[in-house]
Amino acid sequence: MTVALDELLPRADGPEARLTEAMRYAALGPGKRLRPFFALEAARLFDIEERPVLRAACALECVHAYSLVHDDLPCMDDDDLRRGRPTVHRAYDEATAVLAGDALQTAAFDILLHEDTHDDPAIRCLLAARLSEASGARGMAGGQMIDLLGVRDDLGGVARMQRLKTGALFAYAFEIPVIIADAEPAHRLALMNFSNDIGLAYQIVDDLLDAEGSAEEMGKAAGGKDAALGKTNFVTLLGLDEARHRVAHLADQARGHLDMFGDDAEILRASVDFVLKRRS
Amino acid sequence: MTVALDELLPRADGPEARLTEAMRYAALGPGKRLRPFFALEAARLFDIEERPVLRAACALECVHAYSLVHDDLPCMDDDDLRRGRPTVHRAYDEATAVLAGDALQTAAFDILLHEDTHDDPAIRCLLAARLSEASGARGMAGGQMIDLLGVRDDLGGVARMQRLKTGALFAYAFEIPVIIADAEPAHRLALMNFSNDIGLAYQIVDDLLDAEGSAEEMGKAAGGKDAALGKTNFVTLLGLDEARHRVAHLADQARGHLDMFGDDAEILRASVDFVLKRRS
Repeated sequence: MTVALDELLPRADGPEARLTEAMRYAALGPGKRLRPFFALEAARLFDIEERPVLRAACALECVHAYSLVHDDLPCMDDDDLRRGRPTVHRAYDEATAVLAGDALQTAAFDILLHEDTHDDPAIRCLLAARLSEASGARGMAGGQMIDLLGVRDDLGGVARMQRLKTGALFAYAFEIPVIIADAEPAHRLALMNFSNDIGLAYQIVDDLLDAEGSAEEMGKAAGGKDAALGKTNFVTLLGLDEARHRVAHLADQARGHLDMFGDDAEILRASVDFVLKRRS
Repeated sequence: MTVALDELLPRADGPEARLTEAMRYAALGPGKRLRPFFALEAARLFDIEERPVLRAACALECVHAYSLVHDDLPCMDDDDLRRGRPTVHRAYDEATAVLAGDALQTAAFDILLHEDTHDDPAIRCLLAARLSEASGARGMAGGQMIDLLGVRDDLGGVARMQRLKTGALFAYAFEIPVIIADAEPAHRLALMNFSNDIGLAYQIVDDLLDAEGSAEEMGKAAGGKDAALGKTNFVTLLGLDEARHRVAHLADQARGHLDMFGDDAEILRASVDFVLKRRS
């Protein structure tokens, strides 16, 4: 995955090398690569080539990386550390971080739309159109706005924010193989349901780690940061016990959605525990 | 044009309304709409429908608007005024400005990739792929990085910066009808040459206005800002007289490229003076 992404990102040369270097720093550093993992594992459920999925997964990771670079900026979450390393605006500077995020978003579309991604331009268009829906004002960027505004006093508000801010890109990971395989509606629905459950559970785990975690474990400033900032999240609203209970329930439910795929979904099924028992 | 863009941008509703409102503020405010103008005028040279050109021109304007929002940020050019109004980060705040720029870029691809843009997905893909090339690390964003780094001691460096930062999107305006019409190579080449000349002349005029201009005329802080900042540009390198001479030469040359289109290019030909005699 990282090798593929390394090959697809622009080289760091020319007078604009600082920009391409910062893009590579942001996208190729340590990270869980969870969204690409889901795309590639879900692809195993269908009889499709790996190459188109891998390229689309790289595009998805570029969008995820761009969102982290911009979210970390001083005017947003103002984080100095990300995955145990200085954030892009700390390693470079703010202007370079803004541009690197911008150009990573562009690179995502560049990768998807290139004819190497798929022979059929209709598939390339659909892959790119769905990525733009998932990441724009009605998706990830809209979710980040809601997060910044803090308009989420109740569970419904927090859930809506999660669906947009993180859920939309999680769902896109599963849409990649669904689009490429032209999957039947039942399979598509099962994967969308799986994605919703795992995405929501993932966010609750994030909030649990925020409440319980330490700076070492998160690789970023932590220790109940949301609570300290007076921000509402699943844990501040539900409490630790109920939040943990919901994660367990969502994990069971997520695994259940994979029943129709039988043994083919073994790794995806096992990934539920891996994803939800993470410590960072 | 503004009406079309208004219809294509997301409405300002929902809890993320502040984001969509800021996007609309940035894209629908006063502006010359020069790039869409070129796309629509060049389209008259070919026997093609207007709708696909108009939608692609709106996408192009979204990318242009996003680049202005981010370029105006305190960590970049730190401008308080744009087209006589407060810049987005002054009218809203920095975080909203970062997000609005991000989501305007996404909206550009969303508009282009939608099936309403063109029946043929191969055309939609090509339109979107070329926009990503023109605006990414090897295009506009790369040019902005070079501008920030100030790596442009000589005319070659300034020209390279211009080609990427502003020239790439100018060229894209003409590529829109070329792609949609599947124009013959000679026509394509003539329009690319026209775009290069007019794009370069436009930048020299910008530098002339920077040197001569006042805050009133530019609608932004001006008065030899580049020179005051010790920034090299066409005027600081060439001097006022030689810079004016080059604009006149480029204007003649640009009009010459349109000869093969005869009377059909009348408005485009007349636009050269309009564009280059601007006072803001």
